[in-house]
Amino acid sequence: MAVKLAIVGLGKIAQDQHLPAIAASDDFELVCGATLQGECPTGRTYRDVATMLAGEPGIEAVAMCQPPQARFAAARDALLAGKHVLLEKPPGATLSEVALLCDLAAERNLTLFAAWHSREAPAVEPARAWLAGKRILSAQIIWREDVRVWHPGQRWIWQAGGLGVFDPGINALSIATHILPPFLLTGGTLSYPSNQQSPIAADLAFVMADGAPLTADLDFRQTGPQTWDIRIETDQGRLVLSKGGAEMTVDGVAQPLPPEAEYRGLYVRFASLIAAGAQDVDRAPLRHVADAFLRAERIEVEAFHDEPAVPAMA
Amino acid sequence: MAVKLAIVGLGKIAQDQHLPAIAASDDFELVCGATLQGECPTGRTYRDVATMLAGEPGIEAVAMCQPPQARFAAARDALLAGKHVLLEKPPGATLSEVALLCDLAAERNLTLFAAWHSREAPAVEPARAWLAGKRILSAQIIWREDVRVWHPGQRWIWQAGGLGVFDPGINALSIATHILPPFLLTGGTLSYPSNQQSPIAADLAFVMADGAPLTADLDFRQTGPQTWDIRIETDQGRLVLSKGGAEMTVDGVAQPLPPEAEYRGLYVRFASLIAAGAQDVDRAPLRHVADAFLRAERIEVEAFHDEPAVPAMA
Repeated sequence: MAVKLAIVGLGKIAQDQHLPAIAASDDFELVCGATLQGECPTGRTYRDVATMLAGEPGIEAVAMCQPPQARFAAARDALLAGKHVLLEKPPGATLSEVALLCDLAAERNLTLFAAWHSREAPAVEPARAWLAGKRILSAQIIWREDVRVWHPGQRWIWQAGGLGVFDPGINALSIATHILPPFLLTGGTLSYPSNQQSPIAADLAFVMADGAPLTADLDFRQTGPQTWDIRIETDQGRLVLSKGGAEMTVDGVAQPLPPEAEYRGLYVRFASLIAAGAQDVDRAPLRHVADAFLRAERIEVEAFHDEPAVPAMA
Repeated sequence: MAVKLAIVGLGKIAQDQHLPAIAASDDFELVCGATLQGECPTGRTYRDVATMLAGEPGIEAVAMCQPPQARFAAARDALLAGKHVLLEKPPGATLSEVALLCDLAAERNLTLFAAWHSREAPAVEPARAWLAGKRILSAQIIWREDVRVWHPGQRWIWQAGGLGVFDPGINALSIATHILPPFLLTGGTLSYPSNQQSPIAADLAFVMADGAPLTADLDFRQTGPQTWDIRIETDQGRLVLSKGGAEMTVDGVAQPLPPEAEYRGLYVRFASLIAAGAQDVDRAPLRHVADAFLRAERIEVEAFHDEPAVPAMA
């Protein structure tokens, strides 16, 4: 029996990834959606979560795809209504939100799943397997993309709690925390446009538990070729994950990988967590982001305007 | 048998509080210290922790009183050398540091104690007892002090990771997390002097788990009367903790309290944790600070200069 599912927030990530993955899944049946803009493909669209929860008692699970600043209240209401919850990344706007949702889900024996889609990328499990038993000498995260291309008009990303360049950068951290030993921030800088509340770039230095260095170069200002790489030097060769984990080389040689299925993988995992009555909420990627805000230096950089300036009327 | 203790960082808090509390304790015997400046009263003073750990194999426990940016490395080295560790607040410069220290201590069956001295203030347990069974309608933290009086020349407080006004503010949060229901940041502002890396003031709005509001007004720029209050309205009257938890009134009537013994209380607790082979590391106060850095808006305010400007030589 497919789990009756509702989706909240029919923005870019829902349209591009969640709806196709749900449509392809035998485990879930999409019933309805709540969203400020747009329509649910089932034709049952609500403008707020409380009205949807009251009007659709049959739904069993809810996927939360709205901006992170609004995620907690909706997830709390869904858990209080007895629904299982999938949280898009990041799982909350603060760590305390995530802690409270975990407590609430555990008390009610509901599944709470903090989805880190990049961990489902084709190269991630092969990379983890390849690294087992090797000594890591150093690692670099290089995550440079053009925010105008990938986040057009997403004003929430620049607002406090929107995370700025960490919105994509947390994907890299979700992979790194999965395949590398534990690591700690030792210093770095966050670059804030003079007119925005969230950083447009971050340059961070970490140390892994055994002393090897890890650096992260996150930048939203990249034009031309885009880079989403994690490069790892070991005592037995060099591993490179590129295109966000879609490709992998060892000493420059491309490795065979399974086909891309990130969001399908998330819904397979959500279904199996529900079936098992289990939770999966790894806070480490968001904790590293919080640590960067807590510990790194702030630098002010050039103002960023999402749209080209409109000439003033004479 | 008294536990042989070393102290690291003989700055203001060690001189004012730790050394007198250790001297008054039958549970600990101070053996030596490591500090960049100053001397340990035992006459055995080292300039770095590694040299002290190598030169003093008899020490069993170490109290870490240095600035938070340097706490992790010293605590890790002490745990790796088999010592129990007390961490002054905050327990680290990042949450990941605290998580790693907890893992390390647990693996080695050593005591790690994140000391929140304000929780030992005379009014805290009486307040907690008085609140039990009452409905909280709202609460306010008002923590306004003159940084020039209380933190003279403490440059680390202004550097990245030094926490700024949260250095005292985390004391309020350590009490609030102990006596109030769980709460979440919903918004607020951090005020950064244009020449400093840490906030000089914070104005924060939280909501408690049952929906009641909590606000925090933290300010380092207070001159004249200083305020360290937590004011709580309940369905059965108004509780006020003042002077950082040293005094307590109910509906304006002063309550009888035990004598002040914050740091003595910490060392009693540290001794009992060591005897029981237990840990006590509550990360909630630091997590709320990290959440504020992650979620609140940044405002730039007037530059802050710790010392009066020295006239330039002509």
